[in-house]
This record gives sequence, structure tokens and C-alpha cells, in this order.
Amino acid sequence: MANLVCGFDILGLALSAPNDIMELSLTEEPAVTIRNLDSFNLPTDPEKNVAGVVLLSIIEKTGRRFGFDISIEKHIKPGSGIGSSAASAAGAAVAANHLLENIFSTDEIVQFAMNGETLASGVKHADNIAPCVLGGISLIRSIHPLDIVSIPAPDLFVTVVHPQIEVRTSDARQILKQQVLLKDAIKQWGNIAGLVTGFMKQEYDLIGRSLEDVIIEPVRSILIPGFDELKKGCKEAGALGGGISGSGPSVFMLSKDEATAIAVESVMKGVYNRIGIDYNTYVTTINKEGVRVEWLRS
Amino acid sequence: MANLVCGFDILGLALSAPNDIMELSLTEEPAVTIRNLDSFNLPTDPEKNVAGVVLLSIIEKTGRRFGFDISIEKHIKPGSGIGSSAASAAGAAVAANHLLENIFSTDEIVQFAMNGETLASGVKHADNIAPCVLGGISLIRSIHPLDIVSIPAPDLFVTVVHPQIEVRTSDARQILKQQVLLKDAIKQWGNIAGLVTGFMKQEYDLIGRSLEDVIIEPVRSILIPGFDELKKGCKEAGALGGGISGSGPSVFMLSKDEATAIAVESVMKGVYNRIGIDYNTYVTTINKEGVRVEWLRS
Repeated sequence: MANLVCGFDILGLALSAPNDIMELSLTEEPAVTIRNLDSFNLPTDPEKNVAGVVLLSIIEKTGRRFGFDISIEKHIKPGSGIGSSAASAAGAAVAANHLLENIFSTDEIVQFAMNGETLASGVKHADNIAPCVLGGISLIRSIHPLDIVSIPAPDLFVTVVHPQIEVRTSDARQILKQQVLLKDAIKQWGNIAGLVTGFMKQEYDLIGRSLEDVIIEPVRSILIPGFDELKKGCKEAGALGGGISGSGPSVFMLSKDEATAIAVESVMKGVYNRIGIDYNTYVTTINKEGVRVEWLRS
Repeated sequence: MANLVCGFDILGLALSAPNDIMELSLTEEPAVTIRNLDSFNLPTDPEKNVAGVVLLSIIEKTGRRFGFDISIEKHIKPGSGIGSSAASAAGAAVAANHLLENIFSTDEIVQFAMNGETLASGVKHADNIAPCVLGGISLIRSIHPLDIVSIPAPDLFVTVVHPQIEVRTSDARQILKQQVLLKDAIKQWGNIAGLVTGFMKQEYDLIGRSLEDVIIEPVRSILIPGFDELKKGCKEAGALGGGISGSGPSVFMLSKDEATAIAVESVMKGVYNRIGIDYNTYVTTINKEGVRVEWLRS
């Protein structure tokens, strides 16, 4: 999940679920061959596939003659706002680096994966990629030059609802105002400082007070039916706070314990049942590990 | 020092030196009597004196009939940008609370002291007051309601230069643009998140990289002669970074060790000797204690 409330464009978090499964192998033939094992009908042309673009950029960087076979079983629905393309990109980059005997640094892996994000959204960003690669919560202090900082965080439960409507990342970006009031910007950087401090001091109340976005959410939340009611209900049910995941339409809430996270899920279901929009929900945790690698030897 | 680089309006730091000395006693007569022991010619009318206003507001709050005698020996030059009025306000509030047997909470002490800041600058803010009262580095996440968070920080040395020119707080505030570019605001909140994380993780490189202000400093630094040269020279001498203290004209730099802080002082002296502006410099540390109370019993 990117755009962590007041941390728009700089703060992301890795979820334990849902997750994609990829199988990657080296080939002598200098090509990337993609097999999709899911029903999302994503392109198999490597130049049009997020994982494909990442793998092509890795092959090019090595300057060697070889290729990859990859099979992809996605469970993170494209367009959900919970980083589906980042998962493909990060998974491919981490797996390829393992097959190449870890010749690349973490920063390089993130850079490769960002090529996939650029294909998906047209913009080079890393606030989904970095937590997928590193696990936990990542601060992207800067893209040029790349400066990724891991933020230690307490164990938190995350409830996500994905209403089945389409919000295109490019649209969500286009409606943002290019100028903001200085006083709002100050409020935002007070909140981001509070949020980071709350995470590191494990102060749940401070996390809750700081989960406030006075700049992006008021604009983007109009694209998400029921957003205000949803947020109010979830906080009444005990959530610390939350907001739009990525550029939406998914909405997430953080909770201190699992029982609260489940109560929050009920609120989410109630809102979208009443509105009459299909949805998926997930009750999960912060994934502190990032991409998990398993070796399959034949 | 308020306005800690990217932490404009939200982050302040207490210095070990210079500091003011105040002597406060309770009186039966319901009045505030002020004696100045320095040569700054500050008003002795309590309604026009920062410490006086604070003490009057405390008396009013108690609803009781009593007064204070206060003698003030200021060493922090008014108008220097290193929180002279905050020191008066915080010192008076903390001392009065002690004489009243600690009936007020820290938040209330900060609130009383803010009355003095309002007299001095016309704006109610706490980013100087809070670190004076609490010591160390304070985040003011919000003024309404007051939300002060202590940020644990590593031991750092602070070099301050006060060029003897006048920058009025109200002027410094007036030249700021009321609107900022969203992309600059994002950069700023990336830096503030990095700075806070760097303080808490004691990562000096991260602190240095994050000590960047893309919004306020480019505008305000034009009021401070030699600013760009000064900053460049100090960083070359090994400073982690720094910027304008408060609304200026003082400039501060943070360093990892005392030798560097002294080398930075030499750079500062060199710049203002060459330009031909009188100045004071201080090589000091972060004051982690805040206002120090000593009982004098007669």
C-alpha cells in the first residue's frame, strides 16, 4: 500500500495478504517468456507486462546473453490500489536477483522494479516497490537520488476493503491540485512527523491522531462511494485510522489488535452491502519480510 | 530554536547556551513587579513584558489573590531568532508553576507560555516554547488542540551565528507565499519524515540528507547576508546541515562532534568578518533538560 494517509508519495507498507506467486527460471535462450496462471488476462508480451519489463531491464543491465521463463499467479487484483503492479515488479526483480546469485544491491533491485511501475502508471515511484522488497514500512525520502529508509513499526493489523469500482491511477493523479496552501502543507508535515514518531515509539494514540491527510484525501475521496461514512464507522469500531490505499479505490484501516480489525471489516461490509457495490475485504498484518523466496530445484 | 529546517512551524530544539536567568517569588500584593537586570531595556509594564503577560495569565487562571516579583537577567538577545521571548515565557511559566506547587500540567505550562509568545510575535506558536519547557527536540503536531511530542535525539553539537542585523518576525512571515507547489510540499514531508527517523535511529547521514528546506529557506534566506556561502562553507567543514534559526537572522548548524562544531564556528566568523557585519557565535549542545529550577530560600 502506497500513500499512507499523510505520507502521500513517500510512505508505503507491505501487506501479508493478498499476495502473488511467481515461478522464475533462467534460460539459455535470450528471451522472456511469460505464462499467466490466473484469469486477469494480463499481457504476455514482456514489453507490455510489468514483470516482463523488469526482467528485460535486468538482462540488459548484465550485458549477458540469457533469458527468463516466468509463470505468474496473481491474487492481487490489478487496479485495486493495493499495489498489484508493484507486487509483480518487486517479485520479478527479487527472484531474478536470487537466480543471478545476488549480484544487485537492494537499491538496484528497487530501481529495476520501478521500471515495471513506470509501465503500469506512467510515473516512476517507489512507495509500493520499496516495502514489497524490504518488508514493513518504507519511507521514500527521495527518488532522485533514490533514498529509502526503513521505519520500524509496531505489530499492527490492517483491514482492507476493495470496492469493485474502477479508479484509474492517472485520473486520481490528475484531479490533484498542483498548488496547496502553506498552512495545509504545515499541518501535513506535522502529521507525517507524528506518524513516524508514533510508529517508532509504538505509541498507538499518536499514530491514530497523526493518521490525517488534509491535502490529498479531501480531493480523492470523492471518487470512492461511501468513503466518509466508512471512515467514521471504522474509527467508531476502534480503528486507529486509515485512508485511501494507493490511489484507490481500496480503503485501509489500521488497528491495534485482530478483534478490532475484524470489527472494522464488518463495518466495511455493512457500508458496501447497503450501497450495493461488490467488494473484497482482507484482514491482515504488516508483512515485515517482503518478497519471500523459495528455491524449487528440478 | 524553532523552525528546524524542513520542520517549519512544527519542530524546535532547546539550546544549552545562551540562557536567561530569572528569579521569581510569590507576593501577597496582587501585582506583577518586574526588574530587568540586563541592558536590553525591555518593558517593565507586565502587560507589555513577555514574562509579565505569562505571570498575569497564571494568576488569573488560579482565581486567587496574589502576585509575583520577578527579576530577569537576559543573555539571549531579543530579535536574534534563537527564541529570546520563548525563553522569558517558558522560564516564567515553569518557575511560577513550581512556586504554586506544580498544580499545572506540562500542556498548561506551554499554554501559559504561549501567551507571552503571542505578545512578542502576534502569532500563537509553541515550537520555541515546548523545547524550552521539555528540553530536547519537540514536535508540535498541532496547536488546536495542543499536541506536543518529544522526539528522542542523539547527542549533537550546535553552532549558532547571530549576525547583528534586524529581521522582524512579522516581516519574515509576510514574505512567505501562502501557496506552495504540491511537489515541493511532498519533498518537504519526505525530509521531515527522514529527519525524525534519523534523530530516533541516531543515523547521522540520514539527518544530514534530510536537513533540507525547499519551501521556506529559499525565500527567507535572502534576508540574511552571506547565507548561501555560509551554509556551503559549514557543510564543507563537516556540519551535518542546518539553516535559519526561527525567523532569523541567526543561522545554526548541527555537527556530530565538538571539533567539527568549532571548525564550523570558524567558517561562520570568516564569512561575517569578510562581509563586515558584527556577530555573536555559540558552540553548544542540545539542552535535554529544559528550564532548570533552583530554589533560593531566604
